[in-house]
Amino acid sequence: MSEKKERRILVAVDEGEESMHALSWCLSNLVHPNSDDTLILLYSKPPRPVYTAIDGPGGYLFSADVTAAIERYGDQVAHNVMEKAKKVCADLQPQVKVETKVENGDPRDVICEAAEKLAADVLVMGSHGYGVIKRAFLGSVSNHCAQKAKCPVLIVKKPKS
Amino acid sequence: MSEKKERRILVAVDEGEESMHALSWCLSNLVHPNSDDTLILLYSKPPRPVYTAIDGPGGYLFSADVTAAIERYGDQVAHNVMEKAKKVCADLQPQVKVETKVENGDPRDVICEAAEKLAADVLVMGSHGYGVIKRAFLGSVSNHCAQKAKCPVLIVKKPKS
Repeated sequence: MSEKKERRILVAVDEGEESMHALSWCLSNLVHPNSDDTLILLYSKPPRPVYTAIDGPGGYLFSADVTAAIERYGDQVAHNVMEKAKKVCADLQPQVKVETKVENGDPRDVICEAAEKLAADVLVMGSHGYGVIKRAFLGSVSNHCAQKAKCPVLIVKKPKS
Repeated sequence: MSEKKERRILVAVDEGEESMHALSWCLSNLVHPNSDDTLILLYSKPPRPVYTAIDGPGGYLFSADVTAAIERYGDQVAHNVMEKAKKVCADLQPQVKVETKVENGDPRDVICEAAEKLAADVLVMGSHGYGVIKRAFLGSVSNHCAQKAKCPVLIVKKPKS
């Protein structure tokens, strides 16, 4: 019989509706009520833009002001995503323990490394995380993680309405 | 709060240990005790060998006797896999409703079509289903299904012991 045990459920969240749907599905289907599960919400901030020297030495694409503004914007987006995700958790399973984690980098690497480092019992994610164009070049984030992550991976697509 | 509801959980099983591990993980982590979940165990029999006319017209690679023997062997393997899978279910969640389904064809197509036709709430599978060589050519079954199936897909790898 299935015993109560503390599971660490890692959920990759991003700006898209799909990842919030994956989170909801996980809360309704995978998290047992009255369980000791901990949900770890992971957001990976895109790597900082590369500062190409387009005008030769000394000429940079972005000034320090601009990069600082981009950095602040990234932090704000991460904050908003986490607030939204925490609200979804509170609405569906108010008792569940929730932790949040924001990392910099390519989501494919960030997610797989976090799954390993946090010893996640299961990784939950939407089926992508890039736009159409970027996905065509880089492949799907979920495909990559399904192959690389050692823990079970649950991929939830947003149903077409 | 998560409500009790009847879910149809489709589990792709095959001869490999990995699919039995995926089934166990699903029973211990996804199936709620006292739920009305139905587990549908799906086995896809490999397509029949193609009867190549290697000796010109009339000369076939396998005689009718041989193809009948192969067919019987395939049925026996399907039966054994299902018996093993049903035992795993009975051991871990004796109350869960179990149905079995055997289909002929490429597992990639069989699994995705079954998920659709049976209106599965979630598809559970091991991370592959072919041997190393075949996978290199055909790609991973789970990758294919994760992309094509419309329902959530849970991919469970066998932990290296």
